[in-house]
Amino acid sequence: MSDVAPAVSLAKRPADVMKKLVALCKQRGFVFQSSEIYGGLKSAYDYGPLGAELKRNLMGEWWKDMVTTRENVVGIDASIIMHPNVWRASGHAAGFSDPLVDCKISKERFRADKAPRPAVGSPLPITCADKGVAKEWAERIAKEYGVELERDANVLNGLVAISASEFGFVPKGASAPTKTWPWRGYVGPTFGSPFLTDEKQFNLMFRTALGAVDPMQEVAVHLAKIGALPPPERADYLTQTFPTETAVAGSLMLKALDAVRDPNRYQDFIRSFIEHFTSLSSVYLRPETAQAMFVQFKNVMDSSGMKPPFGIAQMGKSFRNEVTVEHFIFRSCEFEQMEMEFFCEPGTQKEWMAFWKEARMSWWRRFANYPEDFVFRQHAKDEMAFYADDCYDVEYKYPWGWGELEGIASRTDYDLTQHEKHSGVTLQYVDQEKADPKTGAKPWKYKPYVIEPAAGATRALLCFLIDAYHEEERTTATGEKEIRTVLKLHPKLAPIKCAVLPLVKKDGMPEKAREIIAALLKAGVNAKYDEKASIGKRYAKHDEIGTPYCITVDGDTLTADTVTLRDRDTTLQVRLPIAEVVATIKARLEA
Amino acid sequence: MSDVAPAVSLAKRPADVMKKLVALCKQRGFVFQSSEIYGGLKSAYDYGPLGAELKRNLMGEWWKDMVTTRENVVGIDASIIMHPNVWRASGHAAGFSDPLVDCKISKERFRADKAPRPAVGSPLPITCADKGVAKEWAERIAKEYGVELERDANVLNGLVAISASEFGFVPKGASAPTKTWPWRGYVGPTFGSPFLTDEKQFNLMFRTALGAVDPMQEVAVHLAKIGALPPPERADYLTQTFPTETAVAGSLMLKALDAVRDPNRYQDFIRSFIEHFTSLSSVYLRPETAQAMFVQFKNVMDSSGMKPPFGIAQMGKSFRNEVTVEHFIFRSCEFEQMEMEFFCEPGTQKEWMAFWKEARMSWWRRFANYPEDFVFRQHAKDEMAFYADDCYDVEYKYPWGWGELEGIASRTDYDLTQHEKHSGVTLQYVDQEKADPKTGAKPWKYKPYVIEPAAGATRALLCFLIDAYHEEERTTATGEKEIRTVLKLHPKLAPIKCAVLPLVKKDGMPEKAREIIAALLKAGVNAKYDEKASIGKRYAKHDEIGTPYCITVDGDTLTADTVTLRDRDTTLQVRLPIAEVVATIKARLEA
Repeated sequence: MSDVAPAVSLAKRPADVMKKLVALCKQRGFVFQSSEIYGGLKSAYDYGPLGAELKRNLMGEWWKDMVTTRENVVGIDASIIMHPNVWRASGHAAGFSDPLVDCKISKERFRADKAPRPAVGSPLPITCADKGVAKEWAERIAKEYGVELERDANVLNGLVAISASEFGFVPKGASAPTKTWPWRGYVGPTFGSPFLTDEKQFNLMFRTALGAVDPMQEVAVHLAKIGALPPPERADYLTQTFPTETAVAGSLMLKALDAVRDPNRYQDFIRSFIEHFTSLSSVYLRPETAQAMFVQFKNVMDSSGMKPPFGIAQMGKSFRNEVTVEHFIFRSCEFEQMEMEFFCEPGTQKEWMAFWKEARMSWWRRFANYPEDFVFRQHAKDEMAFYADDCYDVEYKYPWGWGELEGIASRTDYDLTQHEKHSGVTLQYVDQEKADPKTGAKPWKYKPYVIEPAAGATRALLCFLIDAYHEEERTTATGEKEIRTVLKLHPKLAPIKCAVLPLVKKDGMPEKAREIIAALLKAGVNAKYDEKASIGKRYAKHDEIGTPYCITVDGDTLTADTVTLRDRDTTLQVRLPIAEVVATIKARLEA
Repeated sequence: MSDVAPAVSLAKRPADVMKKLVALCKQRGFVFQSSEIYGGLKSAYDYGPLGAELKRNLMGEWWKDMVTTRENVVGIDASIIMHPNVWRASGHAAGFSDPLVDCKISKERFRADKAPRPAVGSPLPITCADKGVAKEWAERIAKEYGVELERDANVLNGLVAISASEFGFVPKGASAPTKTWPWRGYVGPTFGSPFLTDEKQFNLMFRTALGAVDPMQEVAVHLAKIGALPPPERADYLTQTFPTETAVAGSLMLKALDAVRDPNRYQDFIRSFIEHFTSLSSVYLRPETAQAMFVQFKNVMDSSGMKPPFGIAQMGKSFRNEVTVEHFIFRSCEFEQMEMEFFCEPGTQKEWMAFWKEARMSWWRRFANYPEDFVFRQHAKDEMAFYADDCYDVEYKYPWGWGELEGIASRTDYDLTQHEKHSGVTLQYVDQEKADPKTGAKPWKYKPYVIEPAAGATRALLCFLIDAYHEEERTTATGEKEIRTVLKLHPKLAPIKCAVLPLVKKDGMPEKAREIIAALLKAGVNAKYDEKASIGKRYAKHDEIGTPYCITVDGDTLTADTVTLRDRDTTLQVRLPIAEVVATIKARLEA
């Protein structure tokens, strides 16, 4: 009953798969740019009708596998805005803050703490994209810094790090620099430029203000009054206005006094002053879902009666003010996670790591056409946080190379210890049955060790789209060759499980088709009616959006109560009685 | 087979149901205070193991009813951070900004635009909570304002609005005020005080900064430089520093010049200056999910082939910086919504309003024990936005009175018109089949009219918990009376559908119970194994958390392959063969 010969797979996937996928996602309604009609936000994406279903299915499968079917894991759904002390305890408040610098020539922005640090006396070649760029940059440097740089095709030479406090220009043939500039100790990582802006602190967490009134108003009132006073009177104003506030009376007052003595430090004072007022009502959007599991550890244990070994799982949005957003939905500022913290007895973390590694890899590969594209990469000692015991990434072979999809970390009792310290609340489990290994006496009170499988839901969606994208050459009924695009999504992930198509929009076929839809929906199968365009175009559309099965209502349906069932991957069709449709589809979906 | 006589319902629900429910929610793991170990955030809540499942079930039922089973509605899942122009177009940027004022005496905070406005010449009595408070406030006013107010028990008299620019104190027997203060035109709504702070703008939207560097740093640099200059030179600094920036060159420069002429206006200038820099990278957390459906209207129509009448639905988090958070999860700053925009032909909005009113009310009542607690309230003309055609609230009878649960609004083409105007993108449907009613010629290009059923998911969860909360008096096996607490949640909403309980933890009963669990899970029924405590305590626990069915594995199970099935609402038990368990439970859940 197939209308064409079976299709032939071409290469695993085309070289420009990302370009094609991004276009398909917009055209078919998987993923749109956020606020596109307003020029878009590069840092966020909207999931269209099919993308929303795909994401629901994917995250639903994770929840089913990690929570519903496990006796020892429960789920939570915590707020995105959490108490600011959570991030002080977790280290995000400090650790997520990176010093950023711009190259004044290329405008490249980079992290100062990760930049190359050439040795004193070494040459500082600036590498340009091409000769044209080299010319342009050389001219800019000549104009702004009064120095002509030698050009060697696309490299600007003659710069050298002469000391720890300055660098300079050494003209051809000369032995000493003729002109010097302040030396920062590092250069731009891509171009090698030492012409740099000041460092600026950049925190990856999104800060917002919780509370009735914009703290800016308070700031404005005080800065206006301070700005109107002569410098020596400014410190007095602060002392009189904030006699009892520790933060102001402390470091802020010292800065104010510095500013009086040294006008150059007035800027530092104002910055601290603004920071102080803003921080009074500052909260942050969570940069990960994981911390809620530690913060609610006690409530969950008390209310659910769980005891180690047990896990707390959560799915949901997280936010990071990423410097670089890249590769479509791979790295964006607003994204979704699926994380679980598994609390176990100290000393058992190695076996639980082995358990969860196996469980997680098996989950990923279950939905893949190419299971070999999912591998583990163990972290080297110097890659891990100081408290970590062991760590593995599940990496996926993205079109641009291997990259992270999930981290499975053995975090020891670090997180519970931190939250205990910062909150003053005891976060431990009291095992009445066991003796404390140190004292030999019962009970054993301990802070559980944690294994954390933390997956990116947004990335999972991307990797399964890439895995599913296929182009096949096939021969049409008229003998011509054509390329068929098909998304071979796992049926459990596919947005629509079954399309029901009347061959034509008359003769009672639409009515029959709708009866079948109703039966499928009642059985919990997400089925869609589709009567637009020719049957060939409808098959092609459902191939492109990954619908695994198409049921076609045709002339025989009306006389013999049978329909055809077409398989997305083989394009083969079989005829079966209407009465068997629901059971057949359900059996295939549950296979 | 019942172990006790059928229970007797007491009053519909106890008077202190909220207090009991909040306690049950924490104790059993439905809802916790966010970041509780850090003192908590009053404005946000975390859903524990049972609450997370209840919310998933509730929102899943909405999605199934509104999206999956409807041919003419599709879903989307848009980002929380949207382009700032979205909120300019929607009116939220301006409309959500309220002027707030504090009473200097009582510290009451209120909205200036909603406060009582006594007529000029009328008395201004200040009403205190009691005599003690009256005494305290009278003393404070005497000290700070130098005036003795007459006291009449708990009312302070002698104040009068003497003109549109001042108010004053009229001593007993005198006819004219002896002392005056600036008059704001309104008084505090609860206490009537005219002793007020300045108005402060308060925006209900959460603002955050998208981008690499904290705008505070830029602000600090400039304010430091400006603050160090003598006033006449400050305008020059601005002109030279921002020669091309319109915002600065425009209103900001005018304010700077004002500030030079009038030192009192320096504060206004600084405030605008900080606002300007912050706004360069400001984005907002969405205060509602609805706008994404308008912003992505064209993308959804183009990609899905939908044409009016059709709907776009979305569920997800929204954020509002509420002045008052109240009634547990009823009003909080972070909450969840379930909204749908239904796009229809102009002129058909009345019939679609009738359709969606019926559909939505039927959905609410389907899950309720007391359907009569859900009613419609039509908005009066002066309650509606100027563009609205008609509007109904679905109200629920909360323990504190009737309150909103869902709004169903006929919004005309207002939203699409606004976004068209602000984005410059045409947002219309071209109906090739129909003639434009104005010109009589085909095609008819129109902006669809919109019916918006917008429900609160967090509120829905609260109202179904209230609806489910029951206390019943029952007679135990030993003839004593006791109160049974039972959450009569609809089986489709209940977090756990079926508990499987071995009577004792031995004799192979746990193994049998786990076999039954596995079969239920395979059939898609969320079942939980539970072996802790006596069977009576386990029944009581599952009554409290709303589990509709308990299967007990006992001695007969091992010999006769039968189990008991206990019904939560009747507490009656029946014995049935293990082989029938899955089908029986599934049939009851789907009833």
